[in-house]
Amino acid sequence: MPHFTVVPVQDNSPSNYDSLEGVNWGYIRNRDDSSHGNHKEDSPFLSSSDSASKRNDYYDKNLALFEEELDIRPKVSSLLSRLVSYTNVTQGAKEHEEAESADASRRQMPKSPNMGTLMGVYLPCLQNIFGVILFLRLTWIVGTAGVVQSFLIVLMCCSCTMLTAISMSAIATNGVVPAGGAYFMISRSLGPEFGGAVGLCFYLGTTFAAAMYILGAIEIFLKYLIPQAAIFHPADIHAGSGAMLNNMRVYGTICLSLMAVVVFVGVKYVNKFASLFLACVIISIVSIYAGAIKSIFHPPEFPICMLGNRTLVRDLFDVCGKTVVVGNDTVPSQLWKNFCSSENSSSTHCDEYFLQNNVTEIQGIPGLASGIINENMWGDYMEKGQILEKASLSSVDVHGSMETFGFYVSADIATSFTLLVGIFFPSATGIMAGSNRSGDLRDAQKSIPIGTILAITTTSLVYFSSVVLFGACIEGAVLRDNKFSFYLWFVMYPPWVIVIGSFFSTVGAGLQSLTGAPRLLQAIAKDNIIPFLRVFGHGKANGEPTWALLLTGLIAELGILIASLDMVAPILSMFFLMCYLFVNLACAVQTLLRTPNWRPRFRYYHWALSFLGMSMCLALMFISSWYYAIVAMGIAGMIYKYIEYQGAEKEWGDGIRGLSLSAARYALLRLEAGPPHTKNWRPQLLVLLKLDEDLHVKYPRMLTFASQLKAGKGLTIVGSVIQGSFLECYGETQASEQAIKNMMEIERVKGFCQVVVASKVREGIAHLIQSCGLGGMKHNTVVMGWPYGWRQSEDPRAWKTFINTVRCTTAAHLALMVPKNVSFYPSNHERFTDGYIDVWWIVHDGGMLMLLPFLLKQHKVWRKCKMRIFTVAQMDDNSIQMKKDLATFLYQLRLEAEVEVVEMHNSDISAYTYERTLMMEQRSQMLKQMRLSSAERDREVHDQSNVRRMHTAVKLNEVIVNRSHDARLVLLNMPGPPRNPEGDENYMEFLEVLTEGLERVLLVRGGGREVITIYS
Amino acid sequence: MPHFTVVPVQDNSPSNYDSLEGVNWGYIRNRDDSSHGNHKEDSPFLSSSDSASKRNDYYDKNLALFEEELDIRPKVSSLLSRLVSYTNVTQGAKEHEEAESADASRRQMPKSPNMGTLMGVYLPCLQNIFGVILFLRLTWIVGTAGVVQSFLIVLMCCSCTMLTAISMSAIATNGVVPAGGAYFMISRSLGPEFGGAVGLCFYLGTTFAAAMYILGAIEIFLKYLIPQAAIFHPADIHAGSGAMLNNMRVYGTICLSLMAVVVFVGVKYVNKFASLFLACVIISIVSIYAGAIKSIFHPPEFPICMLGNRTLVRDLFDVCGKTVVVGNDTVPSQLWKNFCSSENSSSTHCDEYFLQNNVTEIQGIPGLASGIINENMWGDYMEKGQILEKASLSSVDVHGSMETFGFYVSADIATSFTLLVGIFFPSATGIMAGSNRSGDLRDAQKSIPIGTILAITTTSLVYFSSVVLFGACIEGAVLRDNKFSFYLWFVMYPPWVIVIGSFFSTVGAGLQSLTGAPRLLQAIAKDNIIPFLRVFGHGKANGEPTWALLLTGLIAELGILIASLDMVAPILSMFFLMCYLFVNLACAVQTLLRTPNWRPRFRYYHWALSFLGMSMCLALMFISSWYYAIVAMGIAGMIYKYIEYQGAEKEWGDGIRGLSLSAARYALLRLEAGPPHTKNWRPQLLVLLKLDEDLHVKYPRMLTFASQLKAGKGLTIVGSVIQGSFLECYGETQASEQAIKNMMEIERVKGFCQVVVASKVREGIAHLIQSCGLGGMKHNTVVMGWPYGWRQSEDPRAWKTFINTVRCTTAAHLALMVPKNVSFYPSNHERFTDGYIDVWWIVHDGGMLMLLPFLLKQHKVWRKCKMRIFTVAQMDDNSIQMKKDLATFLYQLRLEAEVEVVEMHNSDISAYTYERTLMMEQRSQMLKQMRLSSAERDREVHDQSNVRRMHTAVKLNEVIVNRSHDARLVLLNMPGPPRNPEGDENYMEFLEVLTEGLERVLLVRGGGREVITIYS
Repeated sequence: MPHFTVVPVQDNSPSNYDSLEGVNWGYIRNRDDSSHGNHKEDSPFLSSSDSASKRNDYYDKNLALFEEELDIRPKVSSLLSRLVSYTNVTQGAKEHEEAESADASRRQMPKSPNMGTLMGVYLPCLQNIFGVILFLRLTWIVGTAGVVQSFLIVLMCCSCTMLTAISMSAIATNGVVPAGGAYFMISRSLGPEFGGAVGLCFYLGTTFAAAMYILGAIEIFLKYLIPQAAIFHPADIHAGSGAMLNNMRVYGTICLSLMAVVVFVGVKYVNKFASLFLACVIISIVSIYAGAIKSIFHPPEFPICMLGNRTLVRDLFDVCGKTVVVGNDTVPSQLWKNFCSSENSSSTHCDEYFLQNNVTEIQGIPGLASGIINENMWGDYMEKGQILEKASLSSVDVHGSMETFGFYVSADIATSFTLLVGIFFPSATGIMAGSNRSGDLRDAQKSIPIGTILAITTTSLVYFSSVVLFGACIEGAVLRDNKFSFYLWFVMYPPWVIVIGSFFSTVGAGLQSLTGAPRLLQAIAKDNIIPFLRVFGHGKANGEPTWALLLTGLIAELGILIASLDMVAPILSMFFLMCYLFVNLACAVQTLLRTPNWRPRFRYYHWALSFLGMSMCLALMFISSWYYAIVAMGIAGMIYKYIEYQGAEKEWGDGIRGLSLSAARYALLRLEAGPPHTKNWRPQLLVLLKLDEDLHVKYPRMLTFASQLKAGKGLTIVGSVIQGSFLECYGETQASEQAIKNMMEIERVKGFCQVVVASKVREGIAHLIQSCGLGGMKHNTVVMGWPYGWRQSEDPRAWKTFINTVRCTTAAHLALMVPKNVSFYPSNHERFTDGYIDVWWIVHDGGMLMLLPFLLKQHKVWRKCKMRIFTVAQMDDNSIQMKKDLATFLYQLRLEAEVEVVEMHNSDISAYTYERTLMMEQRSQMLKQMRLSSAERDREVHDQSNVRRMHTAVKLNEVIVNRSHDARLVLLNMPGPPRNPEGDENYMEFLEVLTEGLERVLLVRGGGREVITIYS
Repeated sequence: MPHFTVVPVQDNSPSNYDSLEGVNWGYIRNRDDSSHGNHKEDSPFLSSSDSASKRNDYYDKNLALFEEELDIRPKVSSLLSRLVSYTNVTQGAKEHEEAESADASRRQMPKSPNMGTLMGVYLPCLQNIFGVILFLRLTWIVGTAGVVQSFLIVLMCCSCTMLTAISMSAIATNGVVPAGGAYFMISRSLGPEFGGAVGLCFYLGTTFAAAMYILGAIEIFLKYLIPQAAIFHPADIHAGSGAMLNNMRVYGTICLSLMAVVVFVGVKYVNKFASLFLACVIISIVSIYAGAIKSIFHPPEFPICMLGNRTLVRDLFDVCGKTVVVGNDTVPSQLWKNFCSSENSSSTHCDEYFLQNNVTEIQGIPGLASGIINENMWGDYMEKGQILEKASLSSVDVHGSMETFGFYVSADIATSFTLLVGIFFPSATGIMAGSNRSGDLRDAQKSIPIGTILAITTTSLVYFSSVVLFGACIEGAVLRDNKFSFYLWFVMYPPWVIVIGSFFSTVGAGLQSLTGAPRLLQAIAKDNIIPFLRVFGHGKANGEPTWALLLTGLIAELGILIASLDMVAPILSMFFLMCYLFVNLACAVQTLLRTPNWRPRFRYYHWALSFLGMSMCLALMFISSWYYAIVAMGIAGMIYKYIEYQGAEKEWGDGIRGLSLSAARYALLRLEAGPPHTKNWRPQLLVLLKLDEDLHVKYPRMLTFASQLKAGKGLTIVGSVIQGSFLECYGETQASEQAIKNMMEIERVKGFCQVVVASKVREGIAHLIQSCGLGGMKHNTVVMGWPYGWRQSEDPRAWKTFINTVRCTTAAHLALMVPKNVSFYPSNHERFTDGYIDVWWIVHDGGMLMLLPFLLKQHKVWRKCKMRIFTVAQMDDNSIQMKKDLATFLYQLRLEAEVEVVEMHNSDISAYTYERTLMMEQRSQMLKQMRLSSAERDREVHDQSNVRRMHTAVKLNEVIVNRSHDARLVLLNMPGPPRNPEGDENYMEFLEVLTEGLERVLLVRGGGREVITIYS
């Protein structure tokens, strides 16, 4: 049972008040924000503020080698001295500075953590684990499930918590846990999303625990202490449970309100009684053993009255017999009157079963020596309303008429193994009590594991032995009667003391849950990961989390309205199991990922154990109630998604990041095995961007085009080159990466960004082309802008870089796309409602030309455009056959496109062509002379080839402009640069001529492999 | 019902034989290996062999711009002509070449695919979907589940197959499916692992289908055709089912053996009867409607005899009455004798129920007009052995003594909704029949979707109407009697013909399954993805897959030994559902991933539909039998893992690759958001390797060290630089990447490799440092070798590159590790059994020094080593306090290490120091003069600083050697290079002096951030 108390209270009540977890968490969180939360800001190690000590180190002779960097790499001795002062003093000092509430002054001298394992962990755990279920339900569980299966239930629950304790110990000993407990441990090791989800589960579990305790206390009160206090009375004898539930609801609500008031006005009183409560628990448990031993020699008098093999409800008659002797007369007993319609004993209007069976009185608690355990070994699960029977008694099996009138003891709920697991599990919770108080421990890293594990061992042993003792001492028919559960205490050892003790212990546990839960909620709220909880982070002037208390009260009231302990227990089981599940998960994940920071001082953990624990939690959740489990997981999932959606950027450093790193690495390593099959080919773009002087993207439309081509899928790397020396340009690099990333966000390009510094732009681009990407995530296509100013510029680098990049892509077997007039390309908001995307398929280099329009058409901008494919037929081609073949080919490619074959006959070279060639060569010549190129080549040879090429360019341009002048986009094979670098400049001219008069052109070069296939 | 036949057979039996799917698959696979399987080898597009046509193109005037590359980028016209000849001719030619079996010669002239939608898809699907369940179980299902729930069952099953058909249509129309069917479609779109698993599921499903058909046939034979043939007779009247099962087993085994022989010797005969079987099915179905209409006007005579409201077993008496009039006497009837122990009618030794209830005769098939449908609307699920009752008849509910003696009709299995789903589902399978014959279709891409969907629509309508008609015509008590199921046919329209027809149809279906399954197995085996199946790939001389047939027979025998149709049906349901699930998955995944190649001609698919289909398959699996479902999934999972483990590297290009690409991209994009928290910091290494002239790794121990540091986790990028021009060095790059990858494999470094070509090594390294990695997967630590020959070499580049790299790492905020004497580092096979890892912690730069030994100790080589931490105390430090502080710090870091504080007092500078300094400066001077450095600096200033530094180096080295000479590894802060580049050479000298006399040294520089934290 998780309650949130500090153990036997010393007499410094103010500091004791502080040590309540909620409050602790409050101030720790403040520190956490500034130091623990983000080491980068003000870590003690890299502090650059106290320059005085540095000065001294500067000219330390023995460290002369390191002297130039001592400002950022401090001497170890100075670090250590600062470190120690930090851990000893800063804490108090910081708090003082940040104190804002009235009671802050009390903390000026923080209580030094001084609790040992026994007082700090063992006893709180013990107190929190033992709880109301042991008092109210364990006997019933033993009776119903039998000794063997009860043993199994206890074993399952306890081994689950034991495994969780092991995982928790590992987490708790992995570094300084300033304070905080389970929520902080999980949120700091699994990240805010899981942390928040688990924290809220823990909170809900604790809140429902409060409701359960209150219900338990009311049950004790109404059934065993003062039954007369019941407000609602059953209308008739067989409608008892409804009235009882209403009594529970009324008294529960009253009790909850009172407790909430107590918590609100005087939380310190709650704590004062902690040791008293613990004492109650321990005395009660000791009395079990005492009673059991006593029963060997002197079994208690506890007769039960049986009719046939059925147990009779005791309060409805006085004498266990069909007749009583009054004076000398044998008159019908009360029992007789109950079962017969007439008082006349000779009347035959009696219940058939009553007539045919005998009334016997048996010993309800035959004691340890009686061997009754053999009868109780195997359980007897019952339907609701089924009459309790003692199998070993003989009975005539006749259907009587009084079965439904409440004379027999019957089961008040249907039972099954799984149900009992859910009801018992709360008895195993509470294991976090020790770690919740890590702030108060002298040596948390030693105390938490030892104390917690010892406490679980102790409680498990008590449960196991109780199961055996109950089974060995008590008659099964008594055990199975839910109403008797508590009477046992009467007969075991000292009677009334224990009932009252249990009552107060239960009330106290309820109070403590009601104290702890709001503080936990406050801590979560203050972490600010769940915005709508923010209001619960505020406290009253006295530090009480008023709003949180109110919410807790409301949720607990829900539990009380359910009114049945047996219904509430599985609910809180779920939430605690969720929490434990994540503790195990956190441990398993970090162990498997081998995070370097995962170095728990507690060594006896293993990922397999945590995994087993996790599986057991999951199994227990689904065993005890699969629909509750789904609901609880749904709630946790929603919280997770909500926090993720809110984008909590708590730099706590979570294990989950390591998980996605591992996942990325695994996926990348899987991809390594070479280039994908043609079927899987998809453009993975490297977009080369030019930046202007202010490091802004010069042509953002390049990114727009990339985003349209990808429609959000596949890899995009955006690269850019800064000219300079890397040693000096780091800042510039960061700035331009940021600029590019911003632009990528605006243009909705999902991808990566890579800016390199190089002494020559050309080399930088070559490096980008070579080394961008990782493993299988490499680009296969380069997108590059057109060097618009090349003709105007006298600097030949403008086009030399361009041609060099073309050559590089070819050498690297990459495809290349050059969008010309990229500024005229549509933005992502435009929509073409008609028009064509024209493909001029002149040579086949892998099918990129066919694939690109298909990909573009996936995007909204281009969706309405139609695709046209033009190809060129020479003189000797059969253009009709070609058209037919092309149409078939496209059909097989499953592409919808209009097909046109353009006939181009060999024609004479026109005067215009000669003129253009001449112009080009003159210009080139002039520039060459300006650049003092010495070697004059044989111009004639070039001339001829130049003229032929210019002829092609002019003719093709003519045809293309003729057919595609109104196309939205023209895709065109890009001719390769000449093998002889002499002709580079002419090549630029040819490309210009080829694309002249077209608004938007995309020049495409394949990467030397097929990218489209007719096969499935 | 999936059988594997070709529809109404034309009279060309040899080609018909070929068109059996199994055979088709056989030869298609051969082609697949060479052309379809791997386009890169002999794709028609990039063929470089037929150079004759190229020559012609070379000087094509209109393409002069492209002429230089026409060898690798062919003209479109020549491509198209080759393409056409490929698709028309190659197929036959290839087959001829590869023919190896005797019947290959028959294929020389391949049958041109000429089937239309009706004959090629619709009718085969129709025949395969209708099956034995319709004849043997549908009436019973209607009776048990009622009309409404039966409607629901049919709806669930049919909508599941309809959704699957939609997904399958999309897959089948996504490109040319040369032949092959479902297995090929799935394996080619989901990869060999899934393909193999699904293929085997399909195979097992088909094999169990064979068993089911045989059982169905035997059931018809023994129950309705020749009941006298039963070998085993029930020992007494109430032990009928055991004997019947044994009869089934014996006759089933005989039948299976006979069929196997038929398949083995004369598979062609099987096919001849396909149209006959179809005709049988169609006639039977038509007769349902005929019978139903007839029943309106003239309900058939089909009396059933009821005792009270219980149905009596007909064959045990003659007259439906308690007495018969023989002559003039009223004598007890046979029925009377059955129920009474004495023949005397006045005897009272009769069954109580018999006495108190009347015998009535009711009409079993009241007909469509009777309104009986109201009674049949809701079903009546029964326990095993429960007596069939007609609710509307009155009955005195007395417990008689004859209930268990088999006089009443009782349920022979316990029924439930979920069970009936499992039994009915085989009636909906068989939808693959059309796509299995894609090779024979004129236009597969049109016929498959239309034919399959129409066939499913037809069969669904027949099922729906049958459910209604059965419910509307027949008395519920009759419907629920499993034994009556078949008698219905007697009374509907033409009686005996149909029984015989159904029998032959069922036998035929069994034969066809038995023919198809081995061929499917053979196809899978020949794909060679599951090595242990290889033996089943071989055929006999006549092409029969003998071994596969044998295995199929054995598995089918298992099904027959189960002996109950109701038990076998769910098994095959599972396997078919698995197969359908994956078809849906393949479609959904490819749609969601937007693979560019995913362009199905069939447009009416949607990922949500496929997903729904997938969910329905999964739901149906778990609904009909969750344990079978788990077993089936387990089998599929094991096959998957086995194939994955065998590392099948079929370059089919699967959709799953796209999935891991997407996963990698997603994981990487998640990681993008900046550097990780200190808690998550782990070394992500960039290992800079030097290659020798032969492109081999010069110091493989660098990789060994990296692998020891990582212990297999985290990111490692291995980088290297080749000096030269990228345009010329592509091959070299590939070669060295391969060499490095091989070495990485040997040294067990899992990671990525990146070789860049740069004109200067220094620039290449700078680029690697800048641009390696992607997104969040960037290196944070550089590992670099020591430039061993720097003192000997006259080339200053040796150490300049080194120092430049140090500066680069600092500028890029990366950590740096320099293992010196790396060749002495231990290999991965060595194990240090003792010794120390010594850390000399002189300045604090983030904690790398503390973290590295911890990481190394995770590896087997270093596990036994202990860690020692030395730090240096200056004169003014309190070394005792320092030691204490340091120990505390390490305790909080959870590191186990011995702590030592070494006191270093300011001492005079020794003569040795002066000497070393002088030597160093002289050497430096000399070199500088050699390099004609003109500017002579003020040596005095340097001198002083140099002396101080040399003093530090000498003193530190003295202490380190003194304390750590026997350490396994010494870790040391690496001093930064001087701010003034003038001192670079001296810096090298200082480092040499600092590490002199130590065997293994690791110089470490932090990256300017904390990498270790005391916090959890």
